[in-house]
Amino acid sequence: MMKHQLTAEQLWEDVLSVRTQSPLVHSITNLVVMNFNANMLLALGASPIMAHAIEEVEEMVGISQALVLNIGTLDEGWVRAMGVAKKCARAKGVPVTLDPVGAGATSYRNQCITELISSDPPNIIRGNASEIMSVAGLAVITKGVDSSVSSDHAIEAAMTLARQIDGFVCISGQTDHVIDGMGRHVSLSNGSQLMTKVTGVGCCATAMIGAFSAVQPDWFRATVGAMAYLGVAGEIAERKTMATGGGAGSYQINLLDAVNLLDQEMFIKTVNLELTKY
Amino acid sequence: MMKHQLTAEQLWEDVLSVRTQSPLVHSITNLVVMNFNANMLLALGASPIMAHAIEEVEEMVGISQALVLNIGTLDEGWVRAMGVAKKCARAKGVPVTLDPVGAGATSYRNQCITELISSDPPNIIRGNASEIMSVAGLAVITKGVDSSVSSDHAIEAAMTLARQIDGFVCISGQTDHVIDGMGRHVSLSNGSQLMTKVTGVGCCATAMIGAFSAVQPDWFRATVGAMAYLGVAGEIAERKTMATGGGAGSYQINLLDAVNLLDQEMFIKTVNLELTKY
Amino acid sequence: MMKHQLTAEQLWEDVLSVRTQSPLVHSITNLVVMNFNANMLLALGASPIMAHAIEEVEEMVGISQALVLNIGTLDEGWVRAMGVAKKCARAKGVPVTLDPVGAGATSYRNQCITELISSDPPNIIRGNASEIMSVAGLAVITKGVDSSVSSDHAIEAAMTLARQIDGFVCISGQTDHVIDGMGRHVSLSNGSQLMTKVTGVGCCATAMIGAFSAVQPDWFRATVGAMAYLGVAGEIAERKTMATGGGAGSYQINLLDAVNLLDQEMFIKTVNLELTKY
Repeated sequence: MMKHQLTAEQLWEDVLSVRTQSPLVHSITNLVVMNFNANMLLALGASPIMAHAIEEVEEMVGISQALVLNIGTLDEGWVRAMGVAKKCARAKGVPVTLDPVGAGATSYRNQCITELISSDPPNIIRGNASEIMSVAGLAVITKGVDSSVSSDHAIEAAMTLARQIDGFVCISGQTDHVIDGMGRHVSLSNGSQLMTKVTGVGCCATAMIGAFSAVQPDWFRATVGAMAYLGVAGEIAERKTMATGGGAGSYQINLLDAVNLLDQEMFIKTVNLELTKY
Repeated sequence: MMKHQLTAEQLWEDVLSVRTQSPLVHSITNLVVMNFNANMLLALGASPIMAHAIEEVEEMVGISQALVLNIGTLDEGWVRAMGVAKKCARAKGVPVTLDPVGAGATSYRNQCITELISSDPPNIIRGNASEIMSVAGLAVITKGVDSSVSSDHAIEAAMTLARQIDGFVCISGQTDHVIDGMGRHVSLSNGSQLMTKVTGVGCCATAMIGAFSAVQPDWFRATVGAMAYLGVAGEIAERKTMATGGGAGSYQINLLDAVNLLDQEMFIKTVNLELTKY
Repeated sequence: MMKHQLTAEQLWEDVLSVRTQSPLVHSITNLVVMNFNANMLLALGASPIMAHAIEEVEEMVGISQALVLNIGTLDEGWVRAMGVAKKCARAKGVPVTLDPVGAGATSYRNQCITELISSDPPNIIRGNASEIMSVAGLAVITKGVDSSVSSDHAIEAAMTLARQIDGFVCISGQTDHVIDGMGRHVSLSNGSQLMTKVTGVGCCATAMIGAFSAVQPDWFRATVGAMAYLGVAGEIAERKTMATGGGAGSYQINLLDAVNLLDQEMFIKTVNLELTKY
């Protein structure tokens, strides 16, 4: 019996699928990162659309290939629209990715997350360790939207959560972990510390998972592909930033450039993928 | 009898008017592009103001020289505010430019557009071919906010729409067309493919039309001037981006720089203006 | 008796405190500048959080070290949330900084400002000269969000306002003035004309005052430190932009880089601080 494999070459195929199919990714996301997320999706080769009016989210989902929900600047109207969009997407088989930004920071935020995952849960959830632990029901001390613990500490919580939603969970951090409820676990060690100096890089990861899930029906592999791509681009952008004496501002632009221009050779050479359990 | 003319030199006069008069452009626009649009207006020399509270839009219009409406992330409250602002602007003779983002994508969007143009219509409408055809009442297949057809296919629709609103219509695309209901038609062939890799460049075009309409009372010429200026800046930004090995991120910054720094010689040398019918 | 002093070295200590303590700054701010403000706070070393749902602002203030309110794109729901957050912050001793964007432009805006300062006023208010004069009760002619008068003309108004709120007022402009109700007055002459070509630099100043007020209990000194830091970074960014032939787009990125990378030697060498009355 052949061992299951997940190779950098396979992930690159999915990158090409995003670039050629240019899937429409409908995001109901936070006000801080909208522009950056849209630009990141365009740089990747996907087509972003942002629309939150409850009157139109169903129809918008109907023409989209993926739905991304992000609660960073949630309020009542937006969460209601997210619920309607999610239900519609689940019914149509459109993959739903949730970014539970700031989970654990307030009880309102926790309550909205509970509502979003209690029925018709999202297929994929991506967050930092604090957020994933909080969504999995563990009490954590959250410092705003940044994680207070290492991604490695949230692996158990991610497994529990993946089973609970019967889907896929990604913990991002110094190492990114992608986990499902069936026992698969892939780790990625790319990225850059500078990613934490630009707002919304995590949100962009979630948006990119949405884009990959639109073209790759194995959503575990789609999640790995998106995180790998962003991680590699993040490293390339760091090198450019360091080489030119730039800081956080330059890094943001270099990251968009790297996402836009990354080629197969550099991707395969740089990606650091470990099939912890596969 | 002398033939009517519209020259690059005349358009440059309007650029200088924007720079010296720095008109206040009031935008009720979408959440994705607000920052980029405001920066583009500043780079151009205009003064942006964004305000959507229904309690203040009338007074805000009262101190503004142009009003720009963009329905990209419309919802009920914002559309109501747009209606109030538009009515007030029309009553005061303040030029109103509408960007019907995503027209045709959902019935809610179409219904809001119908309300916005059925009475006191905007003076100028700018959209891509899909959007203009949809607003003109033609059924089109829309893929989110990107056009599915070439700008040349929407010329008839634009003429119909221009007559309907008794105003001016701009179809942007590889070639930009500016059309009025009296038979004038100007084509512009500047710009760059990279413009489609940055979110909100079309929205910026609309905002810039607003700025030009504030200083040039012939709103047909104002529309041509704004599209010409952005198109030329887009080409210069492309050259810079290519020369430095940059991608979509660099292009965004280079475009802002080009809009900010463009001089008369480069503008007149580069602009590709055709008086199809004038 | 030793003369009171406020030195560049002391201000640098506060910069280091922001960098090492990375205070959580909760902003309820305008839609145009959210992304830029968050990136500026990250570049500075602080942790931004943006949350406006009335259901969670109290809890969010409870985990924050500073609260920043900015009415640039105010509407009813947001102003109500600001009121709740402010009351909670004042009760807990969390410093509150207000940016009265566009004060004087509309009566609704003025009325909201009056509500925000009439009880439990903010500890610190930063605005341009027009805004400060308007908030202090003087009728001024406002042109949108830009000042129509020099910062020097608003000194009397700032003193009145500082006494009224029993706090601190900063007038930003070519010269920045920091004033309290006890007679202290510090002037800063750093910065760059290019700051007016990027939207939200003033809003970023306010956000940075929030960050400094979180780590320096003398909020007068905190305000001076933030303005000094941004002003010096603004000069460095201008030199870089000029040296590379850049415009408004490059300046935005160079400013983020400068805020991120500024070191002690450059800060102390460049800062232009005058203890007008101290």
